[in-house]
Amino acid sequence: MSKPEKIRVSADALRQMVRAMFEKLGTSPEDAATIANALVWANLRGVDSHGISRVPRYVEMFESGEAKAKPHLRIANPRPSVITIDADAAPGPVAMHRAAREAIALSRKMGVAWAAVRGTVHTGAIGHYVSDVAGEGLIGIGLVAGVPNMAYAGSNAAGVATSPIAIAVPSERHGTVLLDMATAVIALGKIAQFRQAGTPLEPGMALTAAGEPTTDPALAEIPLPVGGAKGSGLSLMIEFLTSVLVGNPIVAEYHSDSPHGKRHRQNGTIIAVDIGAFGPLQAFRTTIDSTLDAIKALPRAAGGQEILYPGERGSRTYEERNRRGIPIAPGPWQKLCKDAQKLAVVIPEPMASG
Amino acid sequence: MSKPEKIRVSADALRQMVRAMFEKLGTSPEDAATIANALVWANLRGVDSHGISRVPRYVEMFESGEAKAKPHLRIANPRPSVITIDADAAPGPVAMHRAAREAIALSRKMGVAWAAVRGTVHTGAIGHYVSDVAGEGLIGIGLVAGVPNMAYAGSNAAGVATSPIAIAVPSERHGTVLLDMATAVIALGKIAQFRQAGTPLEPGMALTAAGEPTTDPALAEIPLPVGGAKGSGLSLMIEFLTSVLVGNPIVAEYHSDSPHGKRHRQNGTIIAVDIGAFGPLQAFRTTIDSTLDAIKALPRAAGGQEILYPGERGSRTYEERNRRGIPIAPGPWQKLCKDAQKLAVVIPEPMASG
Repeated sequence: MSKPEKIRVSADALRQMVRAMFEKLGTSPEDAATIANALVWANLRGVDSHGISRVPRYVEMFESGEAKAKPHLRIANPRPSVITIDADAAPGPVAMHRAAREAIALSRKMGVAWAAVRGTVHTGAIGHYVSDVAGEGLIGIGLVAGVPNMAYAGSNAAGVATSPIAIAVPSERHGTVLLDMATAVIALGKIAQFRQAGTPLEPGMALTAAGEPTTDPALAEIPLPVGGAKGSGLSLMIEFLTSVLVGNPIVAEYHSDSPHGKRHRQNGTIIAVDIGAFGPLQAFRTTIDSTLDAIKALPRAAGGQEILYPGERGSRTYEERNRRGIPIAPGPWQKLCKDAQKLAVVIPEPMASG
Repeated sequence: MSKPEKIRVSADALRQMVRAMFEKLGTSPEDAATIANALVWANLRGVDSHGISRVPRYVEMFESGEAKAKPHLRIANPRPSVITIDADAAPGPVAMHRAAREAIALSRKMGVAWAAVRGTVHTGAIGHYVSDVAGEGLIGIGLVAGVPNMAYAGSNAAGVATSPIAIAVPSERHGTVLLDMATAVIALGKIAQFRQAGTPLEPGMALTAAGEPTTDPALAEIPLPVGGAKGSGLSLMIEFLTSVLVGNPIVAEYHSDSPHGKRHRQNGTIIAVDIGAFGPLQAFRTTIDSTLDAIKALPRAAGGQEILYPGERGSRTYEERNRRGIPIAPGPWQKLCKDAQKLAVVIPEPMASG
């Protein structure tokens, strides 16, 4: 059986479609544009698990009340360099985009700003928000904590989340340099890709739901932490720096008898650092370039693949997909179109197949 | 041949000896105490590679001019939440301790403070400085960048440093919770321990000087990054957030033709976050406790070892060594005593052997 062909849809058309859907779902036009931007950005970068395939889940979350289409964000500035945003179950992109905007503005005055988001859902690809910060000539750092789905070192059960950390810096010739890494050996979205392709995982990547090591992607449920105690320790610290700091603990509640302990929710943090506070921005940008040039010129390990800097592959995918359109598998596309039809939103024509 | 027995020296006696040695080497009494505290803290925590065994290297660095016994730290406050410290080749503990003190004071006013150290040497166990921050009821985050000694993902040569990140938070019943991790699979100090013990490394930990994979600790020179692209990407970002930010790039210079590009030097960052800015400190501390209780109660993986939280092993070693004295191998002890004798510093009596 030949693999069903992917269609390609232009980023603009997708953004317009998703924006229209969210407006019909009740979000403000501004929030709808923010959500559409964040989701399509993930697709453009090749992180399809965090892209438009999430829209049907949002439809569900709005219906169940897990997420609110019209949240009332409560924003406070309890100390000169601190912003807290009570997200009121806002969609992740709405809360995190706002945190990034607040952190950008505040860091320009204070040198550094810490914006904490309490109680949001599905923040998606956090590289998006920190890339926006770097686009302003600042350093962006992002953290997100969520519901446990990864093994803690020494345990064979989901103890902590695959909590990501993202860091973005601006350069002159290399664009935004972006490290966006989960604390797991393999992301859940990647496991799903192996499952679809029918390719076995490598040993040491994941456990079954019962906690047994497996290389079968159909049985893999619990990813293992990267570097053992390092990955799960970093994930736990991200929970402390985000969830516990804002008084909305997820890990402790998850393991308690609390009836709502296992419901989906996330907390996040955006930190912005004004490079100009430390020295000339231009010198920073060109030194990033010369460092990356040195890294790319390093001798290659046996096998001889090109050496990539953080985010380089994603930048290339972005360029290619921005030009040629975003490839979407038939399953997710049909799901999205079904929701669009229900909302009476026009479905764009694919650019081409392949 | 039986292994030469270690002696045990009390932490107080060691601190006094090291302090006296640094005073004789020309540092101020206050700086000497700061250095002695930092080095002996590393021994107490079991990180012997960063402890008093570093003293002879300091003697060399003071003689060669790589480090200065009487540095003139230039401290600036270019933005309300930013402190920069030009360390003038001060010993790492002097510069980093100062950064921690400045960050602690500033974060209490601003909510968050970023203290950047430019041009120091051997910062040692950075967990020490962030633990001091956590001891004040704050969150402490530390980064250090140094000279490349670790492979970059895809390369088989030293491209970036084993740059550590450390995060410390206060709890109520569990003391300070401390994650202190290098971005390498294995620290250079650990490789030295395998070498001494004659135990082979695991595959995937290190390369020879020529870039060949090896499990022979006598040949292992270049540790590999933890999680491949994640570890080396994080290390590169630490270089950007510390060295490039303060205009003292190490990685770019190392790979250039600069005559001083390969000399030992480090840059560091201490970030302090005032927990009280976000909510009640007491609630934070007790939620850390309940989270750690949940982690420790997780089902154990096959093999059944106790599940540890970040820094738990080090805290236990600290208690034990504080009570029973610090075990020191004959070689490093004789080296230290030789330097002490030259400086006419009294050598303490060992507590006991074993």
